[in-house]
Amino acid sequence: MLVISSPSGAGKTTLARRLAGEFDLRFSVSYTTRQPRKDEVHGKDYHFVSRARFAEMVEGHEFAEWAVVHGNQYGTSIATVNTSLADGVDCLFDIDYQGGRQIRQQWPAQSVLCFILPPSMKELARRLRQRATDANDVIERRLAMAHEELTHYGEYDYLVVNDNLDQAYAKLRAIYVAAGCTRVRNDGLAQALLREAAAADHKP
Amino acid sequence: MLVISSPSGAGKTTLARRLAGEFDLRFSVSYTTRQPRKDEVHGKDYHFVSRARFAEMVEGHEFAEWAVVHGNQYGTSIATVNTSLADGVDCLFDIDYQGGRQIRQQWPAQSVLCFILPPSMKELARRLRQRATDANDVIERRLAMAHEELTHYGEYDYLVVNDNLDQAYAKLRAIYVAAGCTRVRNDGLAQALLREAAAADHKP
Repeated sequence: MLVISSPSGAGKTTLARRLAGEFDLRFSVSYTTRQPRKDEVHGKDYHFVSRARFAEMVEGHEFAEWAVVHGNQYGTSIATVNTSLADGVDCLFDIDYQGGRQIRQQWPAQSVLCFILPPSMKELARRLRQRATDANDVIERRLAMAHEELTHYGEYDYLVVNDNLDQAYAKLRAIYVAAGCTRVRNDGLAQALLREAAAADHKP
Repeated sequence: MLVISSPSGAGKTTLARRLAGEFDLRFSVSYTTRQPRKDEVHGKDYHFVSRARFAEMVEGHEFAEWAVVHGNQYGTSIATVNTSLADGVDCLFDIDYQGGRQIRQQWPAQSVLCFILPPSMKELARRLRQRATDANDVIERRLAMAHEELTHYGEYDYLVVNDNLDQAYAKLRAIYVAAGCTRVRNDGLAQALLREAAAADHKP
């Protein structure tokens, strides 16, 4: 399970979608009570639900993780994760540090946490203003939240600066490929070789 | 510091040299008391030294790690590692599990240990016979040593099966690139952003 977080505007969603497009990775679509932006599609970008429905899901223990960001609720359904695990498909999460922490707590050996950094706060502010979908006070709030998120960088395994999108993607891609090569993930291969060596009586 | 080990014949040297060729990586040339094979060059493949000279270096504490493999001595000089560290250049080690263990002990936070596996013991035997530089009993001894080395796979961070050279290289390359993205290696970037956010008074 690859968790990707970043302050909004640092480019995590673009990077995450590109990775999910190249590999057989299931993109975990979160539930949120936030209003859709004009280009967002229900069921693809988010499952947009009412506060009442979200509260019902919380009470029904339907979330693997959930958090409040900018006053809106976001959550990952346990059913989504369990389906991926059952299918043996890697799962990609585009969630914040609170969500990442909960995923790590529940699947410590199987989770890799990656934090996308903007090249500078100045550049982050510029990107948020350029997006121009948000009012000025919303942008200021996002910058303050970015500061808050950054203070949690110590909880992540990897830090990737998104200065140049292609370079940042090459790094994210390497992190994902390397995660598939860890000893824990490939224990069966080494065990099979040891059995073969023992059967062939190559005495150690 | 990237340590690459494998049973002989699994292809670690080819992979390691390709990586050192693509990136600005310093390949650590080991000292050995082994006789050079006909295609090996002194100072490039190994520093070939006498047993007396090797013993002198051991007594002079000149080795960061040294080990006995197939009855021959192999060692990495501390001077080589220190020069790389001083130059800020990543260092690549083509050494066995005993050497890898010593590198990890001395530089625990900076070392990444990668074990190259043959696809099968049968295929390893085929490759060793094909190389045909060694006598039959030497090959049998190498297979027994391969079994012994495999029992130490648990000391490695990553396992890469060398079935197809290009695929194995892509994985090794990803492991190296990802190692450059760890939080420990990029702490300074996150700290700089936090200082900038604090100075701009984006209140968390």
